[in-house]
Amino acid sequence: MPVGTKEASLKIARFENGRIGLVVDDHVVDVTDEIGVEPQQWPPVGPLRMIADFERHAEALKKAAEVGDRVPLSSVRLLTPVPWPSKIVAFPVNYHDHGREMRADYRADHQGFFLKPPSSLSGPAEPVVLPALSGREVHHEAELAIVIGRGGRGITRENWREHVFGYACLLDMVVRGREERVFRKAYDTFCPVGPWLTTADEVGDPAALEMKLWVNDELRQHANTADLVLDIPGMIEMASAVMTLHPGDIIATGTPAGVGPVTDGDVIRIHIDRVGEMSVPVRRGELGATPVFDKPYTPDIAK
Amino acid sequence: MPVGTKEASLKIARFENGRIGLVVDDHVVDVTDEIGVEPQQWPPVGPLRMIADFERHAEALKKAAEVGDRVPLSSVRLLTPVPWPSKIVAFPVNYHDHGREMRADYRADHQGFFLKPPSSLSGPAEPVVLPALSGREVHHEAELAIVIGRGGRGITRENWREHVFGYACLLDMVVRGREERVFRKAYDTFCPVGPWLTTADEVGDPAALEMKLWVNDELRQHANTADLVLDIPGMIEMASAVMTLHPGDIIATGTPAGVGPVTDGDVIRIHIDRVGEMSVPVRRGELGATPVFDKPYTPDIAK
Repeated sequence: MPVGTKEASLKIARFENGRIGLVVDDHVVDVTDEIGVEPQQWPPVGPLRMIADFERHAEALKKAAEVGDRVPLSSVRLLTPVPWPSKIVAFPVNYHDHGREMRADYRADHQGFFLKPPSSLSGPAEPVVLPALSGREVHHEAELAIVIGRGGRGITRENWREHVFGYACLLDMVVRGREERVFRKAYDTFCPVGPWLTTADEVGDPAALEMKLWVNDELRQHANTADLVLDIPGMIEMASAVMTLHPGDIIATGTPAGVGPVTDGDVIRIHIDRVGEMSVPVRRGELGATPVFDKPYTPDIAK
Repeated sequence: MPVGTKEASLKIARFENGRIGLVVDDHVVDVTDEIGVEPQQWPPVGPLRMIADFERHAEALKKAAEVGDRVPLSSVRLLTPVPWPSKIVAFPVNYHDHGREMRADYRADHQGFFLKPPSSLSGPAEPVVLPALSGREVHHEAELAIVIGRGGRGITRENWREHVFGYACLLDMVVRGREERVFRKAYDTFCPVGPWLTTADEVGDPAALEMKLWVNDELRQHANTADLVLDIPGMIEMASAVMTLHPGDIIATGTPAGVGPVTDGDVIRIHIDRVGEMSVPVRRGELGATPVFDKPYTPDIAK
């Protein structure tokens, strides 16, 4: 049976010190013990094992969602759902309108992917911390995240569904500039993911999802995943042509037009239909200065 | 006490199905049980826990090296020593002579780093598998790998030694081209690391290591780590300015001049003084084709 489809339609959150819970009607049912995750274990790979072994847990989780003790969602602190994936694969320039605004001379289907470090992951209750850089903008990029269920190499586009565990909202934060793209996107807290994992069957067709991003109350990005240049089956095919995908790997599918700067005190809100919504505060940090960013930014070469 | 210094001078290998051993005089002493690693656990994070908790194990390991049962090194199959790091950080164009041969208009100290996926890691007994691409060259890049012991953010260059666990040989394999650098360097088996971890005290000053790479019997690369553009303290400072480093993180320090193509049947041999030596066969694979590489390669823009 495909992982994450048919067996269970669930929203799976990570919270407090690493506990796992199901989100049911604005409440959380703690299923840490059912899954056998040790919350404070280092490195935090419990969610990876849960995803890899999900078929074994599905029945118990469905039952827990019905009968388990509930605490209000508002009373818990949500964490990023998969904190130690093998990789976060990201597709640059994967909406045509964003390609135009960045004056990019390529698109994801002719360029390939890049990576973000797992250390950049943060949760829906944590701020995006701006590095202490002068003269540089940090931009938001709203993206749909795919979380891999069953791993593999050489996955064909026809079989993509069998390999998707679920979806989440993702903010691909970036320092604008000409330096190495990965470097500019790698800062701690530059990859908020959440508010939880929504399993694939709960989402249905991921190629018809409305996605919106606001900074404070201003709508900055609004698109539909139908407008992706390289579609989701194509991203899984391309990534797995090159790399073995593992359970828990995250694919950041690219951002549409409307990227722009955020500053200390802003709140970024992202909403994706049937996937979820989260609001992340922005604050200025003390760390992050590096001589790499001492040269001025030339915005006409903004890749 | 700094991790990996003073307590123990060791060569730590991973072998067979994930066992951990000490290399002593061409023999291996199995210390899997002393360290408490479960060999076949998924994901394979035992080596990360060993590194993070090394001070606790150091005495027992030193004793095992002296009195433990030994089997010939030639009788075991060595694996890549740290298979599931949080990240592999890589510094591009970090020797001036390599910058000149690639006609690069930047150096690592002004560009930042990129990442390779942990799924690209392979061991000294495994082949580099060339992707099934026509009209593209796959090049070898010989590099010294740093393995982080104590993690942290904002590490100063003065304190770099306290954060290094050890060193290894690393081959940063790459498909030459203009596409996203990470994509061209991400193929499975494109990051052989080995033959084992050599702890920092065993290596001494990592800024005075001779490194050589042969393809078959031809010497292709020969440099000294004294010629790095951004030195090792600088790399740790720059990486940790941006990202929290974790125990087991790998830093690929860059390659000197002499990179070049390998083909089916070649053997790549890398030797770094006081670190180790390994020979890796090259063979052609069946997977890896992707439309991204369908355009011809323009070698004058070879970054």
